[in-house]
Amino acid sequence: MTGPAVEILDVTLRDGLQLLAAPVPLDRKLALLDAAEAAGVRRLEVGSFVSPRLMPGFADTADVLAAATARPALRPSVLVPNRRGFDLALAAGAPEVVWVVSASEGHNGANLRRTVEASLAELMPVLADARADGVHLRLAIATAFHCAFDGPTPHEAVFRILDRAAESGALREAVLADTIGHAVPDEARALFGAAAARYPGLVFGFHAHDTLGRGLANIEAAYEAGCRVFDGALAGLGGCPYAPGAAGNVSTEAVAALFEARGIATGLDAAALAGAGRIAATFGAPARVPPLPAS
Amino acid sequence: MTGPAVEILDVTLRDGLQLLAAPVPLDRKLALLDAAEAAGVRRLEVGSFVSPRLMPGFADTADVLAAATARPALRPSVLVPNRRGFDLALAAGAPEVVWVVSASEGHNGANLRRTVEASLAELMPVLADARADGVHLRLAIATAFHCAFDGPTPHEAVFRILDRAAESGALREAVLADTIGHAVPDEARALFGAAAARYPGLVFGFHAHDTLGRGLANIEAAYEAGCRVFDGALAGLGGCPYAPGAAGNVSTEAVAALFEARGIATGLDAAALAGAGRIAATFGAPARVPPLPAS
Repeated sequence: MTGPAVEILDVTLRDGLQLLAAPVPLDRKLALLDAAEAAGVRRLEVGSFVSPRLMPGFADTADVLAAATARPALRPSVLVPNRRGFDLALAAGAPEVVWVVSASEGHNGANLRRTVEASLAELMPVLADARADGVHLRLAIATAFHCAFDGPTPHEAVFRILDRAAESGALREAVLADTIGHAVPDEARALFGAAAARYPGLVFGFHAHDTLGRGLANIEAAYEAGCRVFDGALAGLGGCPYAPGAAGNVSTEAVAALFEARGIATGLDAAALAGAGRIAATFGAPARVPPLPAS
Repeated sequence: MTGPAVEILDVTLRDGLQLLAAPVPLDRKLALLDAAEAAGVRRLEVGSFVSPRLMPGFADTADVLAAATARPALRPSVLVPNRRGFDLALAAGAPEVVWVVSASEGHNGANLRRTVEASLAELMPVLADARADGVHLRLAIATAFHCAFDGPTPHEAVFRILDRAAESGALREAVLADTIGHAVPDEARALFGAAAARYPGLVFGFHAHDTLGRGLANIEAAYEAGCRVFDGALAGLGGCPYAPGAAGNVSTEAVAALFEARGIATGLDAAALAGAGRIAATFGAPARVPPLPAS
């Protein structure tokens, strides 16, 4: 059995670090970058331009980005939560930025401390500037399936964001995130199917968490619905500190193994990826595992 | 979204214990039995009638079975690897036995120390005796998808066993096991679909391991292909000591949560199940995690 190739985007150095008790030293991040590149990883998020007061582990993002952009094979990106982060990313020479906005008010408020509308209003000129500057903007829609505060997310909340961003004419790629890992395959199939039909020119990615063990089941369903870009974190690290109940990302190794076992090309080398995963596994334990919301 | 109800069969007290470094005391097993029953579990494997020299953790299987059969709500079973185990199970009053045979010669040889043909020859009179004695025999086909020794398992190897057992007229239920957890959803869909078409009167179960994170993805595919009985172990314990690379069963909690989130009835209570899982989590760590075979 086989099918169209996929692109696996590694987020170990961004999402993978968010719940760790202690910052990862720069030389360890660069060792991971080496190992990921050797394993065939090409796209990867290498940090966040967020307040170092809130997330001290990302204070060296510009340094990691500089190391990544110096490697011609890599296509690194950085997460930006707002205009200020976007400007810092541009100043640091980021070829690609990930702009994050939540589909749910509850998570956008907790994570970005503003309304969805305010995030959208800020995004519109950023989209235009990104295009003018030749920077690829990847629009990340958090809580696209479920929110720990607001419950299930209606498709309309996701499409409201995509409609606005698509109006700019500058949107090329969007990633739909199951931030707390509560989606089921039916939901992944339905949302990616509807989104692909509604936005035929857009590349869609899936950012899946494995909180309840369903990460790969959801990825399988998203692939069948046409999604071709999949985020993962080595050793399954990760989680959002502002999303109670969120746990690790799907592991990059497991995503790659799933597709390789199906005969679907990923460009990744399993043995080398396992080596990179062993580095990630030394990054330390989460500061805390956020509790699951009552259900 | 909804669909036909499923039956979740808990194997914590059998498969869940096989890799543990030390035997679980009887009173802890009975505490788990209490908690599982309170969570709504009805079918469960409570031990193995195997040589206590090879697996000392199952020396008290008759005691656990007696406690389980004394609870009218429960439908307990015990695993038996051969005629001797079957006779012990009957003597101990087991209402249900799980007869295990592997689809691959490599695993049957390592696990049962005989050829598949020898296991089948021993099974035939056992099937007749089970029917005569009013004992439900659940036929478990190990390595139905992949074998650590022999590689991928052809459908024919599974059907060879089912054909022989079905000839007896006494076979009512078969469980197909992804013993090492290397299956992908396409393989689960294909095998359960083909088996349901070939044996229309037979109830099929799926025993999935989560070694590579694909357990729930495979279960989802098996459900779509008509499978309605799913094995799980609390806290994801488990693995076969004679299957290099095998790791934990899919967790009973995660299987239940997947179906409940899809609106499919399981009869289980999530909060009570989580409590049972916390007991299982105190059973200790695996003696060793068997290495993955080279691939």
